[in-house]
Amino acid sequence: MKIDVLTLFPEMFEGVFSSSILGKAQEKGLLQLGTVNFRDYANNKHNTVDDYPYGGGGGMVLKPEPIFTAVEELTSVLEQRPRIILMCPQGEPFTQRKAEELSREKHLIFICGHYEGYDERIREHLVTDELSIGDYVLTGGELPAMVVIDSVARLIPGVLGNETSAVTDSFSTGLLEYPHYTRPAKFRDWEVPDILISGHHGNIKDWRRKQSLLRTWKKRPDLLEHAVLTEEERRWLEEQKAKEAVRQRSEGHE
Amino acid sequence: MKIDVLTLFPEMFEGVFSSSILGKAQEKGLLQLGTVNFRDYANNKHNTVDDYPYGGGGGMVLKPEPIFTAVEELTSVLEQRPRIILMCPQGEPFTQRKAEELSREKHLIFICGHYEGYDERIREHLVTDELSIGDYVLTGGELPAMVVIDSVARLIPGVLGNETSAVTDSFSTGLLEYPHYTRPAKFRDWEVPDILISGHHGNIKDWRRKQSLLRTWKKRPDLLEHAVLTEEERRWLEEQKAKEAVRQRSEGHE
Repeated sequence: MKIDVLTLFPEMFEGVFSSSILGKAQEKGLLQLGTVNFRDYANNKHNTVDDYPYGGGGGMVLKPEPIFTAVEELTSVLEQRPRIILMCPQGEPFTQRKAEELSREKHLIFICGHYEGYDERIREHLVTDELSIGDYVLTGGELPAMVVIDSVARLIPGVLGNETSAVTDSFSTGLLEYPHYTRPAKFRDWEVPDILISGHHGNIKDWRRKQSLLRTWKKRPDLLEHAVLTEEERRWLEEQKAKEAVRQRSEGHE
Repeated sequence: MKIDVLTLFPEMFEGVFSSSILGKAQEKGLLQLGTVNFRDYANNKHNTVDDYPYGGGGGMVLKPEPIFTAVEELTSVLEQRPRIILMCPQGEPFTQRKAEELSREKHLIFICGHYEGYDERIREHLVTDELSIGDYVLTGGELPAMVVIDSVARLIPGVLGNETSAVTDSFSTGLLEYPHYTRPAKFRDWEVPDILISGHHGNIKDWRRKQSLLRTWKKRPDLLEHAVLTEEERRWLEEQKAKEAVRQRSEGHE
């Protein structure tokens, strides 16, 4: 896969693109990552990429020409137009499903604004996708682009080696992960739960599944709406909820 | 504010911490950013920071000692225990409200795992907060920590200069932003809407507000539940929805 990022801050990407999974994916030849400073496409003497908004108001707006020209230079040699993704707070909320969809593409182009808004014509006539990584305000689209790229890259076949491919992920089962423990068995006063040292694989599996269910119910009950549970699991969880309610009421009476 | 990040990949942070707003905030003396490689606190001959999980299964688990020791060294000189934030998929979903809350702290410590899970005792006995930036799977907590740090840092008084403080943000009004346009007034075949060149400030304000409402309804209707709208605005939006429904039905009949 080839990924190009249009940004005014290419240096922000250096450490992230050369480390860890993204670095290794490039070494293996599975991924090509590049940045393009679209200021190089500002066709004016001051290299201006933004200007005041029509209609007044604060803030600057990214001009259409430099971004159109930069994208067109990248795509001029291609037979098919790649996905062109605008990182912006108004975008479609990014999800694991979107990561899977994007991981099947051959070429992605990301456009990152910084401080400024985008001229609407970029949105209307150039991009194919608008993505937002969450409902919080950031300085620019650079970190969101890195987040999307990391999550897409690890899904490209061959990118994750054996040492990492087995990592359980919370969003494939639709539940939060169960608690993990490693050595030492006793750290300070805190011991690993007996069951995990019991050697009973069936019991351990059962305990882990129930911990996942409990944790999801306590921390992210919204996820349970779409998680796949057996009838028995649903019943068990309802029992736990009922017990918890009784416990809370009795504590309230003390 | 002082922010320390515990990570096995400190080099990932270099470009991001030295650029843009985060770089400037440090130059102004408003922010101190540091990274700590907790591998330096692995008290064993192979500098091991992770180990196999009790109870079996794939993946590795980050051991408690190196992380406890690294945090304790950072906090030993402090009078008050700072917020210690674990970046993990099971965490509380990060929001703009959380960014505002964290921006009032004096010292934050972030713990970033990478590939591995965390030993549960870190979660139970060391951290004060667990945060997740969204429901997608990433290689580690490094990018999520950068996202949280960026969004917190820009809220520290004095960090955003005049050139940027006026940026409208989607999540303060609870609505998505209206479309922006800048020069040229005609780019290729696409012109800026007449109203923005009209000079009628009242009309422009009205148009922008309505565009925000329409865009939020079309792209993120979930945000309208919590947005503050006047009675008149709610009525106008209901009218637009009704018109759209009629239009879609008539298109369906053609």
